[in-house]
Amino acid sequence: MSVLLSASELKERLLAIGAARYHDKHPFHRRLHEGRCSRGEVAAWALNRYYYQSHIPIKDAALIARMDDAQMRRAWRQRLVDHDGAAPGEGGVAKWLHLAEGVGLKREDVMAHRGVLAGTRFAVDAYVDFVRTKPLLDAVASSLTELFSPAIIQDRVQGMLRHYDFITPETLSYFTARPEQARRDVDYALGYVAEHARTPDRQQAVIAALEFKCDVLWSMLDALHYAYVEPGHIPPGAYVPPSASGET
Amino acid sequence: MSVLLSASELKERLLAIGAARYHDKHPFHRRLHEGRCSRGEVAAWALNRYYYQSHIPIKDAALIARMDDAQMRRAWRQRLVDHDGAAPGEGGVAKWLHLAEGVGLKREDVMAHRGVLAGTRFAVDAYVDFVRTKPLLDAVASSLTELFSPAIIQDRVQGMLRHYDFITPETLSYFTARPEQARRDVDYALGYVAEHARTPDRQQAVIAALEFKCDVLWSMLDALHYAYVEPGHIPPGAYVPPSASGET
Repeated sequence: MSVLLSASELKERLLAIGAARYHDKHPFHRRLHEGRCSRGEVAAWALNRYYYQSHIPIKDAALIARMDDAQMRRAWRQRLVDHDGAAPGEGGVAKWLHLAEGVGLKREDVMAHRGVLAGTRFAVDAYVDFVRTKPLLDAVASSLTELFSPAIIQDRVQGMLRHYDFITPETLSYFTARPEQARRDVDYALGYVAEHARTPDRQQAVIAALEFKCDVLWSMLDALHYAYVEPGHIPPGAYVPPSASGET
Repeated sequence: MSVLLSASELKERLLAIGAARYHDKHPFHRRLHEGRCSRGEVAAWALNRYYYQSHIPIKDAALIARMDDAQMRRAWRQRLVDHDGAAPGEGGVAKWLHLAEGVGLKREDVMAHRGVLAGTRFAVDAYVDFVRTKPLLDAVASSLTELFSPAIIQDRVQGMLRHYDFITPETLSYFTARPEQARRDVDYALGYVAEHARTPDRQQAVIAALEFKCDVLWSMLDALHYAYVEPGHIPPGAYVPPSASGET
């Protein structure tokens, strides 16, 4: 039923998925960037997002563990360096922890994932499991949401600095290096996909992998929006902001 | 830090988890049972719940696959019989399909899980994965939400028959046999837990397993409530009711 796409047709299909399903279209992201979140909502976002961020090097290591080719392992290894750094306190995950502390959370609570939503855990765990168990091409393709991340990062940093007095450029330092890293990562992953998705079935698997990853990010925001925007919806055991009364 | 609980203390702790975290406390369940759901919301509930139901025999088979003891495998095998039946059209999963058709869904869409929420998939898949990978005691303990199911089934059947003119006793025939099956299943699982949770650590693992399973059921309703109760929240790719305008 599917036909073989050219490399540029496949890339267009992937870009169209982002245009329809990437989480910059989610109501919670608009709320966050437009300054409509309470401080408690921003804290809940940071806490839950840290669960995602802290699993990224685990996901990348699971991917590297499946690569037979040393050159590919070396290239992908840079992602571990970016996220885990060279020493404690360095790297992207540490910068996310810094962001979470900057919005008022306790470091040890964040590191222990205390109060993280079940919806966040299940989505992130599904992503790690996908990368562990699906064919390598699908696993690489699931990283392609980085095609869309430089734009959302620009919106987020500008919007958050403008609207929240408790956010400083230093709190958001995680995002400084990310757009360039993401562009480098995505060039590599796109090159791999173009080279290896050579049948209609494999191309459809690439498309499905990117849709799956968009679902992961989207459902994290569904869970967050449901729990923290309307009163009375915080699930048992989840983080309760100091004042859940909705002050901005 | 934990102390060894007696069998009755452990059972009390498990009952307390149900009292605090079982999904009969979720706003969506109250809405469903009190007749406040639109027909589209009931259909979305049935579609998403079918994803759960159809994975129950897969979960049970994964559990049986891990049992060294033939007597235990034989006892647990009854669950496969209950859910898969003896022939096509028989058993609990077929009856759920019947329920889904009874609320206006197309059989083939339901069986293909078309439009199921990502939040549902990730929660159910996390449950199957839990049973596949955690110690056998934890996996058995995660089935103990059946302690609480007879009561919710009674509420649901009475409430849905009273409030929805499109629901008949025949639509809900799945629930007729379930309370008795659940009591039998839970007696077995509780006996196993009492016999094998003999250290404080193992007892805490049993408690954590039941909390995990409550989180699975709860987060499914979070996703459903978020997507279908407030307008404008249906995620990309998810089921859209024929009229999503909220008629009851």
